[in-house]
Amino acid sequence: MRQSKLFTKTKKEVPTDEMSKNAELLLRGGFIHKEIAGVYSYLPLGLSVLNKIENIIREEMNAIGGQEIVMTALQNPELWKKTDRWDDQKVDIWFKTKLKNDTELGLGFTHEEPLTNIMKNYISSYRDLPCYVYQFQTKFRNEIRAKSGVMRTREFMMKDLYSFSKDEKEHNEFYEKSKEAYKNIFKRVGIGHLTYITFASGGSFSKFSHEFQTVSATGEDTIYINEENNVAVNKEVCDDEVISSLGLEKNKLVEKKAVEVGNIFTLGTRFSDALDLTYQTEKGDKKPVFMGSYGIGPARLMGAVVEVLADDKGIIWPESIAPFKVHLLSLGEEENVKKQAEYVYDTLMKKNIEVLFDDRKGISPGEKFAEADLLGMPYRVVISARSMKDNGIEIKKRNEEKGQSVSLEELLKLLASNH
Amino acid sequence: MRQSKLFTKTKKEVPTDEMSKNAELLLRGGFIHKEIAGVYSYLPLGLSVLNKIENIIREEMNAIGGQEIVMTALQNPELWKKTDRWDDQKVDIWFKTKLKNDTELGLGFTHEEPLTNIMKNYISSYRDLPCYVYQFQTKFRNEIRAKSGVMRTREFMMKDLYSFSKDEKEHNEFYEKSKEAYKNIFKRVGIGHLTYITFASGGSFSKFSHEFQTVSATGEDTIYINEENNVAVNKEVCDDEVISSLGLEKNKLVEKKAVEVGNIFTLGTRFSDALDLTYQTEKGDKKPVFMGSYGIGPARLMGAVVEVLADDKGIIWPESIAPFKVHLLSLGEEENVKKQAEYVYDTLMKKNIEVLFDDRKGISPGEKFAEADLLGMPYRVVISARSMKDNGIEIKKRNEEKGQSVSLEELLKLLASNH
Repeated sequence: MRQSKLFTKTKKEVPTDEMSKNAELLLRGGFIHKEIAGVYSYLPLGLSVLNKIENIIREEMNAIGGQEIVMTALQNPELWKKTDRWDDQKVDIWFKTKLKNDTELGLGFTHEEPLTNIMKNYISSYRDLPCYVYQFQTKFRNEIRAKSGVMRTREFMMKDLYSFSKDEKEHNEFYEKSKEAYKNIFKRVGIGHLTYITFASGGSFSKFSHEFQTVSATGEDTIYINEENNVAVNKEVCDDEVISSLGLEKNKLVEKKAVEVGNIFTLGTRFSDALDLTYQTEKGDKKPVFMGSYGIGPARLMGAVVEVLADDKGIIWPESIAPFKVHLLSLGEEENVKKQAEYVYDTLMKKNIEVLFDDRKGISPGEKFAEADLLGMPYRVVISARSMKDNGIEIKKRNEEKGQSVSLEELLKLLASNH
Repeated sequence: MRQSKLFTKTKKEVPTDEMSKNAELLLRGGFIHKEIAGVYSYLPLGLSVLNKIENIIREEMNAIGGQEIVMTALQNPELWKKTDRWDDQKVDIWFKTKLKNDTELGLGFTHEEPLTNIMKNYISSYRDLPCYVYQFQTKFRNEIRAKSGVMRTREFMMKDLYSFSKDEKEHNEFYEKSKEAYKNIFKRVGIGHLTYITFASGGSFSKFSHEFQTVSATGEDTIYINEENNVAVNKEVCDDEVISSLGLEKNKLVEKKAVEVGNIFTLGTRFSDALDLTYQTEKGDKKPVFMGSYGIGPARLMGAVVEVLADDKGIIWPESIAPFKVHLLSLGEEENVKKQAEYVYDTLMKKNIEVLFDDRKGISPGEKFAEADLLGMPYRVVISARSMKDNGIEIKKRNEEKGQSVSLEELLKLLASNH
């Protein structure tokens, strides 16, 4: 796309009330817009990142048998009363609203209740199990504080998958598969090397849940990492008993700040008991369905990528989720430069390479370079009077210092090889 | 996909409080689930239809220069007070909620205010105009009654595009383009032949707005159609003066019930004045931006398709938005039938033809036929002992009475030809 047509622009500064690096860079780059504290709109570049993250998650969920649906934000209190999660004293992050006839409704912060209720229509026999259902849907959470940019917000898209199994054994098989799917996701979005599967509180449901924690100086959580076997323990649960029960050694654990980028929970029969989701076994007995839940927030992932990969010049997007693979800069007003830049742009478009073409006039090379660094596309390709004297084109990776001079043919070869 | 794996099932009956044909068929088919009155979740088959409709709309919006973003449901009252649309006396469909500190927030029923506010960051000069911004985003409308199935709901996905132009002339050019884009959308989803561009009230913004009305016996609106030039007038505004001002003749107008499937509005400077969205002209003057808005609800479109195309056996999906192009039925338990059905399924999958494979055991042919009719895929392909005695495969279009006996090669040719 031509940058001259993109309606957003970068900014030199952002309001001083934004404390987090991710929000600062995403706001300056025009990826997002802040509506109120903890509530962000996604502008074209930001939506593109979000969509790419979602598609990666979707592929991984489909690969483990997930079936996609979409539930609603508006929630019927009757279901939540049955599980004792309606009362504001019990759940303190509800947003609530009312119908015209004064009936109270909630705005869903999670969806165990409505999905368990839906599944009552479709699960009655052992033949209907196991099954795995997920959605990408907007959650609302009435957080008291929201100061971590897009990582902790009051309204956000979440992927939540729920598993329905005959028993704990069948559940555990899927639970292990889901761990691998999650690992794939973090690897594919570019933070796999910094992300640890972490033992965390299982709440009222089971002994442990598992979080995926990405090491980040600005993370809200503290974890203890055992590098040898690539696991961690959340500080919340990390006492001597837990450490030894996991076969870990206290003196090998390293404390780090981290951000939770995903979590998986064994729910057991907590919701199926309360909402009466049962099935008939092969022998004819009636048993409650054994459940699990698996959450991941694409925007939080986006924020985490910015936090941990950015440098002091701006964002560095991994190629898998960058809005464009290439940022093509046309520098200077010389006719032959502009013509060559247009030709390179056309050629890349024809090859289906995603390219943002900075074709704007009256912007200095220094400004264009600074903006390309802020926006963080993986490859910066420059056409200028200087590049034309050399092989024609200069290409530089965003995360490397030095570029190289190449011909168009070499450029295409480089970009095709996907490094 | 294998129907044996699909978690939803069809139902013979639905709750008697569903009055509308679209909700009845969509609920029976397992396309949707009713959470509360006017609030529906979309299950795998329903979400698939919705996604296909959305993609058609997205393509048409991109083709006229739209840039996609996504704004938020949670709304800051300050913006809406400036346009005098916050007060419940003025706008009677707000859902409202509160932050923990008691600050009131709204749930957006439309997005002129927040987008105008966003654009203040990006529009300052005539060089920034025109521009067109759209989203697919969940709207909340606190309707008193909700009894038209998925066609009038309290929570629904909407595509809303907003245009920002230098003046009325530039606006009108885009407005005309948008009409063509909308016509393409209705044509592509299969209701173009029943849909009329209809003069309707312009509200406080301009003399007329334009609605797209699809003729339907169960529609909420009444329109007067002039078949000759393919236009209609909404009853709301259809008086002698309007008829003659549009160059129509009263005696050629035919009254019909219809459902509004889209609308486009000239907003003028109503919002840019109130929220101070201005630009500097080439001469250096300051002028308010001239705006328009363009709405379409994918779920309402889905409901309208069901209402106007279904027959007494069930839904008839146009190929462009059907969850699957082919419903493949394996009838009977004979080994050679089952083997052939599996082979046909594999072959279609390899050709990237979308196919729902009814591989379920213990379901009678009559039941499978009835379900295929209810679910409404464009092509029904049957493998049975009888078909195997003939050319091997029976194929029948959902909207035709008679099928034909074909070989696998002929089947592939038929399905590739896209009729």
